[in-house]
Amino acid sequence: MAKPAAKPRRTAERILEVTLELFNRHGEPNVSTTLISAELSISPGNLYYHYPAKDELINALVERYERALAEILPAAESVRHVEDAWLWLHMLFELVWDYRFLYRDLNDLLSKNRKLETRFQAVMRAKERAMHQLLEGLSRGGAIGLGGPESASVASTMVVVLTYWLSYEYVRDPRHALEPEFAAAALGRGAYHALALLIAHLDAASREHLQSLAAAYIAK
Amino acid sequence: MAKPAAKPRRTAERILEVTLELFNRHGEPNVSTTLISAELSISPGNLYYHYPAKDELINALVERYERALAEILPAAESVRHVEDAWLWLHMLFELVWDYRFLYRDLNDLLSKNRKLETRFQAVMRAKERAMHQLLEGLSRGGAIGLGGPESASVASTMVVVLTYWLSYEYVRDPRHALEPEFAAAALGRGAYHALALLIAHLDAASREHLQSLAAAYIAK
Repeated sequence: MAKPAAKPRRTAERILEVTLELFNRHGEPNVSTTLISAELSISPGNLYYHYPAKDELINALVERYERALAEILPAAESVRHVEDAWLWLHMLFELVWDYRFLYRDLNDLLSKNRKLETRFQAVMRAKERAMHQLLEGLSRGGAIGLGGPESASVASTMVVVLTYWLSYEYVRDPRHALEPEFAAAALGRGAYHALALLIAHLDAASREHLQSLAAAYIAK
Repeated sequence: MAKPAAKPRRTAERILEVTLELFNRHGEPNVSTTLISAELSISPGNLYYHYPAKDELINALVERYERALAEILPAAESVRHVEDAWLWLHMLFELVWDYRFLYRDLNDLLSKNRKLETRFQAVMRAKERAMHQLLEGLSRGGAIGLGGPESASVASTMVVVLTYWLSYEYVRDPRHALEPEFAAAALGRGAYHALALLIAHLDAASREHLQSLAAAYIAK
């Protein structure tokens, strides 16, 4: 019985992969279900069978995104040093990159899709919690001394940088910023600017370490 | 000869004001020229006579925005103390609020309007320059000691916070964040988070002063 069920599951999976690619390349508002079925060489009816509306494609992709995020966020608790934080932030920025269509038109997507609205609020809360854990972890590891309202403000601003850094790069250079060959540098600058929020709170050794980790990215 | 010319100018002006209001309320993608002419109780032909395409409405509003920005940015040079910086950032945040439709769908607007693309790059550069001047001013006033790559990183992150703070508030609470009665608090939190990037660099008196200025906003 497993075999006949496997095929539609594979098709559904393939639809999601191609949709993600198209959304990321052109922006969700510029991709119709007609384009998606054409790109997949399947009939609109077959696409409709798996995902009866564009919103369901979006919601399925958001589910995937949430699962990937849920695998990364808990590692914030075990961060003790600048290098752990740097790697962890890189993973988060790479995930933003993988689902950049969500961030490209976030406000418009939220205003049109009630499910997404609720879910993204949870995503933001989870990220904010993880940033607090990161700061606590670094503090436990002795790399920073930071607490109270200042630490809450830093955590929020880190989430802002994580959420919007790629948009900022795009506004500054729309022709290149989101081309795959520029991605690594843009993500590195994002991770650096998120961590740089801690620079003044870091001990001298950690600060130097951060500067050397980031040297390749801040030359630009 | 002045009088006959005055009327179309007034109509053009009124069209812009109503368009700005509609864009801000519903988001630019959700406002058609048909809706604009209906709201103004003028014929689509009359609207077309003044602005032959929606992009021209957008471009005219961006011109207004640029003029308003050009009046605020130069004041960065004369900032010496935290209180000056606080007021100046408030003015900038209020301008973002007045033209929030631009920030709501910035990436999509840029991808569809080549003129806007070029102009917004200049806007971002001007803001970044002004942030540098702000930091230099505070440094000259003795409130902070900050320089080199650290100061460049702080200036960029201040621009990110200025550009995306309202979007961040919107994602966290889409039903209320952009309602006019919540605006003052949201803008205050934005200004605080932008200035909070300097907290660790401020002298003790300036730091305390910032905390007291911001007390009303960070309670939330």
